[in-house]
Amino acid sequence: MAEPAPEPVTLYVCATCRAAGDTAEPRAGARLLAALQDAVGAGGHAGITVAGVECLSVCKRPCTVAVASQGRWTYVYGDLDAAESARTILEGVGLYASTPDGIVPWKARPQEFRKGVVARIPPFPPLAAPCLPDAAE
Amino acid sequence: MAEPAPEPVTLYVCATCRAAGDTAEPRAGARLLAALQDAVGAGGHAGITVAGVECLSVCKRPCTVAVASQGRWTYVYGDLDAAESARTILEGVGLYASTPDGIVPWKARPQEFRKGVVARIPPFPPLAAPCLPDAAE
Repeated sequence: MAEPAPEPVTLYVCATCRAAGDTAEPRAGARLLAALQDAVGAGGHAGITVAGVECLSVCKRPCTVAVASQGRWTYVYGDLDAAESARTILEGVGLYASTPDGIVPWKARPQEFRKGVVARIPPFPPLAAPCLPDAAE
Repeated sequence: MAEPAPEPVTLYVCATCRAAGDTAEPRAGARLLAALQDAVGAGGHAGITVAGVECLSVCKRPCTVAVASQGRWTYVYGDLDAAESARTILEGVGLYASTPDGIVPWKARPQEFRKGVVARIPPFPPLAAPCLPDAAE
């Protein structure tokens, strides 16, 4: 039997982040979102979905992204560069997707993720929670 | 038919947060965790589960908590006080639990939540995702 496919990963990108002192339109967050969508669209990143978000409430550390996946920790990263960071972000998200719990060993993480970490949140819902549609009745 | 019970809420509390310059044991995070567990244990906060976490990676803004719930946005808050904040946190989490999506109007949020917000992350998994145990097969 084949290995089960790894859980897909959602990469949320704040589209409203504005780089300090930068009044350009589209905003830095929207430019980073477009760069990530282009990179994923070009292939080689199966299982990663890029999703624009209106605000991740990390306005003081633009640009910001969050990465989430069923059964894995969620991570939020800031201080990312609209023009330069897309490749590094996808490299880090690829490492994340290769782990069972989302925890990449510290030394293996891209430096931008080590310096830019804003927060991490445990897997939700907890892995032990059964999937019971009837429980709501 | 009765209204369905609102989705339960998990309040993650970083137990390893250390207040600036405070070398006391137990650490500030552990003291906040204990205060929240005591308050919830005393009743009046149905549907809220307090869970200690080893680290939320918000080490520069102790104490820190995160609140998560199925179908709602996740919020991370920092700059909380181990001795004073438990009641305010539970007030804010109660407001969160009373919303369908976790988004409490800005003006209704406790000031500590307005000042202390670290990040927010969209609901995961997305509401549209069906609950299909067979899909993993």
